[in-house]
Amino acid sequence: MTSSFPMQNYPLTLDKFIDHAAKWHGPATIVTAARGVAVDRVGYATLRSRSNLLSGALQAVGLRTGDRVWTLAWNSAHHLEVYYATMNAGLVCHTLNPRLTPAHLSAIVNEAADRVLAVSANLMTLLADLLPLCPTIERVIVLDDAAEIAGDAWPVPVDALDGFVGTYGAAVDWGAFPEESPAGLCFTSGTTGAPKGVVFTHRSNYLHTLMSIQPDAYCLSAKDTILVAIPMFHANAWGLPFSAPAVGANLVLPGRDLDGASLAALIRSENVTIAGGVQTVWIGLLDHLDATGGDVPSLERIIIGGSKCPDALIRRMEERLGVRVQTTWGMTEMSPLGTVDSIQFAPMASRSSGRPPIGVDLKLTDAGGNTLLVQRGTIGNLKVKGAAIIERYFNADASALDSDGYFDTGDLATIDEGGSLTICGRSKDLIKSGGEWINPAEIEDIVGRDPRVAQVAVIGKAHPKWGERPVLVVELRTGGAAQARTLMDGLRGRIADWWLPDEIVTLPRMPLAATGKIDKVRLRAGYEAGEYSDVQRARD
Amino acid sequence: MTSSFPMQNYPLTLDKFIDHAAKWHGPATIVTAARGVAVDRVGYATLRSRSNLLSGALQAVGLRTGDRVWTLAWNSAHHLEVYYATMNAGLVCHTLNPRLTPAHLSAIVNEAADRVLAVSANLMTLLADLLPLCPTIERVIVLDDAAEIAGDAWPVPVDALDGFVGTYGAAVDWGAFPEESPAGLCFTSGTTGAPKGVVFTHRSNYLHTLMSIQPDAYCLSAKDTILVAIPMFHANAWGLPFSAPAVGANLVLPGRDLDGASLAALIRSENVTIAGGVQTVWIGLLDHLDATGGDVPSLERIIIGGSKCPDALIRRMEERLGVRVQTTWGMTEMSPLGTVDSIQFAPMASRSSGRPPIGVDLKLTDAGGNTLLVQRGTIGNLKVKGAAIIERYFNADASALDSDGYFDTGDLATIDEGGSLTICGRSKDLIKSGGEWINPAEIEDIVGRDPRVAQVAVIGKAHPKWGERPVLVVELRTGGAAQARTLMDGLRGRIADWWLPDEIVTLPRMPLAATGKIDKVRLRAGYEAGEYSDVQRARD
Repeated sequence: MTSSFPMQNYPLTLDKFIDHAAKWHGPATIVTAARGVAVDRVGYATLRSRSNLLSGALQAVGLRTGDRVWTLAWNSAHHLEVYYATMNAGLVCHTLNPRLTPAHLSAIVNEAADRVLAVSANLMTLLADLLPLCPTIERVIVLDDAAEIAGDAWPVPVDALDGFVGTYGAAVDWGAFPEESPAGLCFTSGTTGAPKGVVFTHRSNYLHTLMSIQPDAYCLSAKDTILVAIPMFHANAWGLPFSAPAVGANLVLPGRDLDGASLAALIRSENVTIAGGVQTVWIGLLDHLDATGGDVPSLERIIIGGSKCPDALIRRMEERLGVRVQTTWGMTEMSPLGTVDSIQFAPMASRSSGRPPIGVDLKLTDAGGNTLLVQRGTIGNLKVKGAAIIERYFNADASALDSDGYFDTGDLATIDEGGSLTICGRSKDLIKSGGEWINPAEIEDIVGRDPRVAQVAVIGKAHPKWGERPVLVVELRTGGAAQARTLMDGLRGRIADWWLPDEIVTLPRMPLAATGKIDKVRLRAGYEAGEYSDVQRARD
Repeated sequence: MTSSFPMQNYPLTLDKFIDHAAKWHGPATIVTAARGVAVDRVGYATLRSRSNLLSGALQAVGLRTGDRVWTLAWNSAHHLEVYYATMNAGLVCHTLNPRLTPAHLSAIVNEAADRVLAVSANLMTLLADLLPLCPTIERVIVLDDAAEIAGDAWPVPVDALDGFVGTYGAAVDWGAFPEESPAGLCFTSGTTGAPKGVVFTHRSNYLHTLMSIQPDAYCLSAKDTILVAIPMFHANAWGLPFSAPAVGANLVLPGRDLDGASLAALIRSENVTIAGGVQTVWIGLLDHLDATGGDVPSLERIIIGGSKCPDALIRRMEERLGVRVQTTWGMTEMSPLGTVDSIQFAPMASRSSGRPPIGVDLKLTDAGGNTLLVQRGTIGNLKVKGAAIIERYFNADASALDSDGYFDTGDLATIDEGGSLTICGRSKDLIKSGGEWINPAEIEDIVGRDPRVAQVAVIGKAHPKWGERPVLVVELRTGGAAQARTLMDGLRGRIADWWLPDEIVTLPRMPLAATGKIDKVRLRAGYEAGEYSDVQRARD
């Protein structure tokens, strides 16, 4: 055996994906849209060369390996160009949610010490407030449309993308760094705590991509046209900006417009086959089609993630849209794929979140971190391990793992005999009533099956005798608050009597985090502050 | 950015596959057959624990990291057990083709310095000749069936697998070595030169597995039952022993019996959905079904590799068997997958070998190694690059790569506008006639389309005036040698007149290498030695 490696040195870096698509999938197209209308089409070969020139431009203005570039942008080819330009040059693409407040944004940007901001043109109105709060930002690049730049005086240079590349662009060699180098940075949404930074590496993103494209996972092919209705600032839009070029699929990037009318128009005009997004997006699509008529005949599948999707909504989507709904579970700390319900099997009546693909391992522990002896059919704290799962948060001194090398998801879960996962709630969301635990997720699951219910959450309220008592919060699709009490009928006999909520709050619109998840932190705060007017006793 | 890695340290080692299958795909089964009848069924969890005990046993008798274990075995669960027991303990599984002569086998074993031999019981008759020639072998383990051990006196200890594990077995921790560690060793078939050893690493096999299971490649799912009709001693049976547990598919291992009757019985009894093997195997299946009637209704797809498959044979397979034929190209040095025709698209009338999946790159050069400026629609020398492609041969001092880091396949190929590869022959097989090149593969392709032709090869014969002239060698399905000359009619007008073969040799059976490829070395030797009786002039 010689000492040199017998197989080629082939670092798992993300430039491989766009190089591959440019060379082998020339006809594939990346479509960028605004208000549901395609405004730009670019092939992978052009995207590759544009990204490469942008890499050179970023290096020309002084950025060096490991430096962070902040993106405040919608889903577009320009945003994708910044992804590849930064990552492939050894820079770190730091995506951030434009819907956060300037105070939140600047706190994160300062922690990350981002040097350049790439901002969508229609978000430039934020700059006047933001830039003074973000002293590490040396330069701004404007994406998507540069019409609004002229006439303003900015504290740092502000260039349209094309102008910036025209001035500084140069072809460079990509990938001359170890595969463990950081590629992306994304802060968690903070619905359950303070935002924390997750650093994706080239290796973790590469392996996540290979893992996610397989038939029992996202099942992606060069034949597909993929609508990315997950923001690219949220966990790399589930990795689709990597997996689409890896397989040579067409990409449809809808800009900021995720409303039902825009998505329906785009699915039809681009013959989208697969669409990914959280459930609220698809409720919008369903409501639009119900109101206006029409179909989306090309669409074969919708991948949903985020919070658990009620079975009634899944049925409605599958029947009305003629698609297969594919449920998944994951989190930013997992890049994000954790489990996925394979479309190779007939769907189950009640949809779990599926099994982990190779490269993700799960285990259940008790609250003390001890692995449960019985891993099937019991509820436990969910711990995860894998190549694309976090070891430590950005700037953290300590590892985020337990002594066995697993990461604690904070979720409660159960795994059935077939290995399929069902999230049963957040360990932090549990309500302690009279010394015993009530799991809000179980109540939400039952109420969520009622077709009148659009969104449901159960939160704890302080109670002098019992410690905490459950409160049911609903957003109704049909019917008013007067009917809300009848939702209790569906609960009686299905859960223990002492689990039955004490109160029902009816909201016109559930507070959602920017990711589409119900924001229970805001919900509890609003309830405690007495902000909700429509509160009624649930039980006599 | 802290100095520690932000994502988990998760080495790409092969124990992950069998651990994953054992934990998440309990119901999946590995079936071992003999003469088309299942003789053993084992689940992944049991296979995992058996392999793990065998790892401990191999360590107990003194094997250490990097040591080689030689397998001389058919496709069986026991053979798979040896794969995982050796590789996962940091040993190297050295597979060898039992159909090689004792002289060939021992030369390779001595070069590899194998320490233990794992041999199928029905190959033990080879041992008397072999063991005296293989002084590095310290111990023999008998697989599949131990009935034949008793009563013989051997120069080294010989144990049945169960007895060996019973005596020495111990549970061990797997995987405590770098992912670049060698896992497997396979010598090339030597149809085009002296056998050379290819060393697969854990990392290369892991990445090859993820690459191969995707929808546009082998498209493997937990729903599948995969018949492995490629020997496990040939390029790890295209990686199926890794990819099946990685996705949790059922495996059907047919033992030594790849005849049509055995495979038909096994496909039916086990409801096989996907079968992999070289074309000669499927000709056997077709002939059996044509002769006896009957169908293989569960079978959805046949993956073929090895030499180019004639379109007529593909049509016959698809029509008679009701399957999709999936063409691939690869070589041992590529682990072996190079390109694959995706089943996600409607099949083309004339089947190419498809596109490279992500992780394989191809380029065409001239004979001097210069990259061709035009990479589409021209014929060139095919060079390859990727994570599961050889850097250097076993025990070689020099890298096998060119200055750009590409490996020369020795094939001539063309790539169409869509990126699909067609192999046009071996650069060494080219025939130089009057100072110009004749490509045997083009002639073979045309003749191979004739439904009367079972196998075809064109070889060069020495010629005093022209240097070399082509000779057409055929094995006919129907009709005798008297009709062979009419095959020339199909060539006239389709190739240049001076490409037309001078002679036709009709053989009752084409000489094949153990891999199923036509053995042109033997063919040329037989022709030159005057061994073929049925030689006629092709042209008047």
